[in-house]
Amino acid sequence: MDISGIVTFTTDFGTSDPYAGIMKGIVMSANPNARIIDLTHQIPPHDIVSGAFVLMRSFVYFPKGSVHVAVVDPGVGGSRKNLAVRTESGYFIGPDNGILGLVLDMEKNYEIREITNPPFVLNKISDTFHGRDVYSPCAGQLSAGAHFEDVGRELKRFTNLDYPRVLREGDMIRGEIVSVDSFGNLITNIDEHTFRSFAGKKVIEIYFGSERFSKIHQRYGDVEHGRPLVLIGSCGFLEISMNEGSAASYFMTSVGSPVTIRKF
Amino acid sequence: MDISGIVTFTTDFGTSDPYAGIMKGIVMSANPNARIIDLTHQIPPHDIVSGAFVLMRSFVYFPKGSVHVAVVDPGVGGSRKNLAVRTESGYFIGPDNGILGLVLDMEKNYEIREITNPPFVLNKISDTFHGRDVYSPCAGQLSAGAHFEDVGRELKRFTNLDYPRVLREGDMIRGEIVSVDSFGNLITNIDEHTFRSFAGKKVIEIYFGSERFSKIHQRYGDVEHGRPLVLIGSCGFLEISMNEGSAASYFMTSVGSPVTIRKF
Amino acid sequence: MDISGIVTFTTDFGTSDPYAGIMKGIVMSANPNARIIDLTHQIPPHDIVSGAFVLMRSFVYFPKGSVHVAVVDPGVGGSRKNLAVRTESGYFIGPDNGILGLVLDMEKNYEIREITNPPFVLNKISDTFHGRDVYSPCAGQLSAGAHFEDVGRELKRFTNLDYPRVLREGDMIRGEIVSVDSFGNLITNIDEHTFRSFAGKKVIEIYFGSERFSKIHQRYGDVEHGRPLVLIGSCGFLEISMNEGSAASYFMTSVGSPVTIRKF
Repeated sequence: MDISGIVTFTTDFGTSDPYAGIMKGIVMSANPNARIIDLTHQIPPHDIVSGAFVLMRSFVYFPKGSVHVAVVDPGVGGSRKNLAVRTESGYFIGPDNGILGLVLDMEKNYEIREITNPPFVLNKISDTFHGRDVYSPCAGQLSAGAHFEDVGRELKRFTNLDYPRVLREGDMIRGEIVSVDSFGNLITNIDEHTFRSFAGKKVIEIYFGSERFSKIHQRYGDVEHGRPLVLIGSCGFLEISMNEGSAASYFMTSVGSPVTIRKF
Repeated sequence: MDISGIVTFTTDFGTSDPYAGIMKGIVMSANPNARIIDLTHQIPPHDIVSGAFVLMRSFVYFPKGSVHVAVVDPGVGGSRKNLAVRTESGYFIGPDNGILGLVLDMEKNYEIREITNPPFVLNKISDTFHGRDVYSPCAGQLSAGAHFEDVGRELKRFTNLDYPRVLREGDMIRGEIVSVDSFGNLITNIDEHTFRSFAGKKVIEIYFGSERFSKIHQRYGDVEHGRPLVLIGSCGFLEISMNEGSAASYFMTSVGSPVTIRKF
Repeated sequence: MDISGIVTFTTDFGTSDPYAGIMKGIVMSANPNARIIDLTHQIPPHDIVSGAFVLMRSFVYFPKGSVHVAVVDPGVGGSRKNLAVRTESGYFIGPDNGILGLVLDMEKNYEIREITNPPFVLNKISDTFHGRDVYSPCAGQLSAGAHFEDVGRELKRFTNLDYPRVLREGDMIRGEIVSVDSFGNLITNIDEHTFRSFAGKKVIEIYFGSERFSKIHQRYGDVEHGRPLVLIGSCGFLEISMNEGSAASYFMTSVGSPVTIRKF
């Protein structure tokens, strides 16, 4: 694969501690020319689903041949494996706990390897910080063009993500809020394709909390200030939003709340 | 213009969502050699004045020929235009909602264009995320040396910022707090030049809350620990500060509070 | 010294203001090829000990010849000097207030200079923002290979850090919590070497709050979910942690709390 030299990070390490910076130091020790981009380090601690969702929505906007590192890793140091995956888009690196699950749902062809071989791991590996000791050296090496075959043995299985799936029951589909962004947009697990193939040209109604919406809007400004609306968000999922306000505050709700769509 | 290859970002996107990272992916897809620097992604949501103030105080510290992207955009997807401006300092990119207003107050010569032409915009433009679909591809192209003339048609007008101006009334000037930094420094809209040309060599008094200050200090340590003072802040504006403490907490106040200066 | 071209930042400037971005603009004005990495900008305001501790735990993970800038500087503009230090690892830049103290405890050979000479300082130096006017131009120059001798005159002394030392009293050692990370791990000032040379092969007990621990665990998963444990953290210090939980919340405690270890 042609490499882009770009390494992205998605973690729950926060930005007040030096953990993210330390990982970058390791990447640049392996590849001084790496260009490193943070997707976010503010995944809620240990929230694997949020990490998987961020990565899945983001990697498509990067050049092919980029290396994407995702570390939300409550089981660090335990029996779960360390994975590097090569797809047609690039490389994905993280623990085998489901965090790569949504990406692998999207990618057709991929090859998975267990990260075990130096220099893809540091000589001494701690039991508490594989982001530094395993994922970062591996990212540095792969972003510099190292051979994927040298990472470690090939694996045929990986751990799927425990992700809420959209349910279809006759004239209804049921989804839920899977992410809330900093504007208070409530992002559902219902993607545009699923919605359009369900709704077709039928009349639809969307139920959320005590609110009933009778259409999908195009832009925030389609409703008055401070009014809620439903639209297809920028990453292709149905969102409950508000024009110049926070839908999360308005509905006083968060991840897990059900969204139902009915067609007539 | 000679380009520096640097792209800066000023947005209200926060750092917990991947929106800022996605924009960087788009910039690097257009210009793999771009060097991207965050001014901040923590402008209060939809606060155009704060975004304009941050950009105005910051761009002068960057090499000429840098590209500065500012996205605080409550009207995204509506009728407001997308602007790229070339000045003697570099390029400025953002919505036509006033966010570039304070920069353009400072810059003498500039040319404004509406961003409409691929590859300065993505092939598909959403109605909710022009940061990704318009401003980032434009920034990537311009930072790589693309011709400004190709961005789109020239515009002769832009939307001014609704910014609180300093009022001068005889022996008094009235300003207000326009920004509070993370140390609790209260930054006014009164710049050093305005103050000096008003005060001359006269005796002055500064009134803020129930406090009266009889001089401008040079450094925080000029007063005792925990005492408030007034100084010309690092970016050239009068600030109400506190030695090793937060003036914002001490005065229990924020943006909009009036500051009056009198000369005798 | 061979330079790496990398500049790291450790500050208490936060990320909501443009101060960190402005420093980067200055670095890149001096060295357009600098690669800049944030360790953190979220040191608690004016907390020199935290800044020193972050820097000390982090710099070893960067290539030799990197430039590390640390700015926690309540005395800015006063009589404290501005330091640049060359060690066998690289360069360290910051105020002479102790923030470089823990690094210099670790480094055997070093040379200290006062930063006074252009272009290592800007032509105009404010009394409120030496991060921009002194440390950043110095970092830019040194990261580009400028001669260390040109920075300013050599100094033979520097200000030590007022750091809590581990006390050893017969069969006990007493330390304390010096940092709490965003996962709620309580990091002590007791490093692995001090602990191992004290404990040897003896039976030990660790007292913290009302809890008594009878062993050092290897990984978080060695105890049940929601249970506290003690381990050697990833940066080599004893930590009070919790499996998939926050020890800081569990113990309702923070920096300064005592930790006692006894051997039998």
